[in-house]
Amino acid sequence: MTRVFNFSSGPAALPEPVLRQAAAEMLDWQGSGMSVMEMSHRGKEFMSIHAQAQSLLRELLSIPPNYRVLFMQGGAIGENAIVPMNLIGRTGRADYIVTGDWSAKSAKEAARYGKVNLAASAEGSNYTEVPPQATWKLDPGASYVHICSNETIRGVEYHWTPDAGKVPLVADMSSNILSRPIDVGRYGLIYAGAQKNMGPSGLTVVIVREDLLGHALPATPSAFNYQVQSENDSMYNTPPTYAIYIASLVFGWLKAQGGLAAIERHNRDKAAILYDYLDRSAFYRNTVAREDRSLMNVPFRLKDESLDDAFLQGAQARGMVQLKGHRSVGGMRASIYNAMPMEGIRALVAYMEEFEAGHA
Amino acid sequence: MTRVFNFSSGPAALPEPVLRQAAAEMLDWQGSGMSVMEMSHRGKEFMSIHAQAQSLLRELLSIPPNYRVLFMQGGAIGENAIVPMNLIGRTGRADYIVTGDWSAKSAKEAARYGKVNLAASAEGSNYTEVPPQATWKLDPGASYVHICSNETIRGVEYHWTPDAGKVPLVADMSSNILSRPIDVGRYGLIYAGAQKNMGPSGLTVVIVREDLLGHALPATPSAFNYQVQSENDSMYNTPPTYAIYIASLVFGWLKAQGGLAAIERHNRDKAAILYDYLDRSAFYRNTVAREDRSLMNVPFRLKDESLDDAFLQGAQARGMVQLKGHRSVGGMRASIYNAMPMEGIRALVAYMEEFEAGHA
Repeated sequence: MTRVFNFSSGPAALPEPVLRQAAAEMLDWQGSGMSVMEMSHRGKEFMSIHAQAQSLLRELLSIPPNYRVLFMQGGAIGENAIVPMNLIGRTGRADYIVTGDWSAKSAKEAARYGKVNLAASAEGSNYTEVPPQATWKLDPGASYVHICSNETIRGVEYHWTPDAGKVPLVADMSSNILSRPIDVGRYGLIYAGAQKNMGPSGLTVVIVREDLLGHALPATPSAFNYQVQSENDSMYNTPPTYAIYIASLVFGWLKAQGGLAAIERHNRDKAAILYDYLDRSAFYRNTVAREDRSLMNVPFRLKDESLDDAFLQGAQARGMVQLKGHRSVGGMRASIYNAMPMEGIRALVAYMEEFEAGHA
Repeated sequence: MTRVFNFSSGPAALPEPVLRQAAAEMLDWQGSGMSVMEMSHRGKEFMSIHAQAQSLLRELLSIPPNYRVLFMQGGAIGENAIVPMNLIGRTGRADYIVTGDWSAKSAKEAARYGKVNLAASAEGSNYTEVPPQATWKLDPGASYVHICSNETIRGVEYHWTPDAGKVPLVADMSSNILSRPIDVGRYGLIYAGAQKNMGPSGLTVVIVREDLLGHALPATPSAFNYQVQSENDSMYNTPPTYAIYIASLVFGWLKAQGGLAAIERHNRDKAAILYDYLDRSAFYRNTVAREDRSLMNVPFRLKDESLDDAFLQGAQARGMVQLKGHRSVGGMRASIYNAMPMEGIRALVAYMEEFEAGHA
């Protein structure tokens, strides 16, 4: 067996110890005689896994007691509708900050459920920056202000927390949750699809301040009603049990790495090596504003784009996969989430240097 | 490692060869160097798994070409809302046949989205039968007629296909899909959560006739719009990739068993052994009408319910788990889906005889 360095933007690489444990426990979880996939979600075995996942996530993110953690079915695109269904009824309108493709999609979906105010957009810079908060046109009567804390396609990330005043701040953190410590108390609601830093696709984590529950529009499906799920500890329906199990193993792995402060240092070190090289090279380029560059997704272009296919083939031959940029923008992209080891970064930069030398 | 006989109603036992293959491929799927969990859903590796799952399901169920197969996020409780969101807009109203807790829940959820006509209900028999179609009060202007083809809690199953005339028949087949051949052409739409006969929870299969697409209400989230998902081959969002992979292995296992005709014979043989014993015994009883008894879920009660705990403890000690009935009805329940081997049935009946002899 040879493992590759997998730069996929998501579903993405998982820590190898997590996969090893999952493989070892596949037919018999801790002497239960069952796979986790086969367990009733209401049995004591799975209930203990569910509780452990919740408790580890609370510990890693220091989630205050007045926040509920929900393990929902689906992903962030579904949640783009489910968030406004649950929250926009408070005042009928919401502010959206658009910094890339995902926040644009969120804003478009929300418009089905209320009035959406585009309070700021990075379209003018071709989505290469986060617009400074001083330029945002916030509505003090908004039900919430929505941001996407990291845009995977163009690699733009918030390295600061907006101040929405009394309006709850809602963040789609799908692609940078658990990559560094955050102050949960400054948000009204955080949501994240699992398939970047937490586990398999099909699970969405929602962290919601209690006072924001109970405002769902009448059309909200019961399974996606935060109040209903909160009252039922995310078990109004059968939750995605195996995905929650893998997430609990990932949370345990993060804790063993030293928690989010340690993982942040590691992520900063990894990204610095790649960005420093891009900045030194005239052969490759990244055009995102330095202060807004993503630590998770590093898009770059070859000066001569006719070499793109050769670059990708060479990478594949060296065991580095999924480096092709999103089909909407082209170029290359290295997604380097928590589970990407430093060796993967070093191997990539070494290959980039080699390729540059061979084609200069 | 000792595997138990797992009588859970869902998530439920999976075929052991499927689990063995999943364990073996966990770190490296077929030389890709990646776990299936780590694959981009748009990469060639996962696309091949997705196509294989769809093709095997089409083959097993002989799905006609004018039907689309969608692999959706979520489960049947979510789908209880998503079905009317997509279909009830055709005429604004729908017929529901209530044969137990799940179809009652479906009808209640649908009422958010249009006028629900309770065309028939088994409440009068305390949900121990399927009301004969001659008693149904169908609305010829309904958008669809909804049934639940198998009720897991009380063990009531349709062993015939209703004739809804020109009105599309919609069936929640979560708990008996793939347990026997069906004539898909007699249905407008079939939906099923994966976690009984297909794989892990978090995946819902929808089989829909093409002419029923395109009627979604404006409030339908894009991720749950059948037309949108159909146009995007279930990839408008990131699908639950690992669950689809396990389902594809289960479909392959079913094919290797001889397909649905063979699995039906096996399921009939298994259920007959259990029901025959229940009918012979005065110690246990099942009160469902004989012609409507479920082949998948066999609820039964001890004559003396003060022995329930002792019965369950003895079963657990013999490696038979999850035999407790649903908390809403009490008693016992043996769920015996496709993956339950004949040895599990024989072990259960042997234990029931032993327990009866010890407490007569």
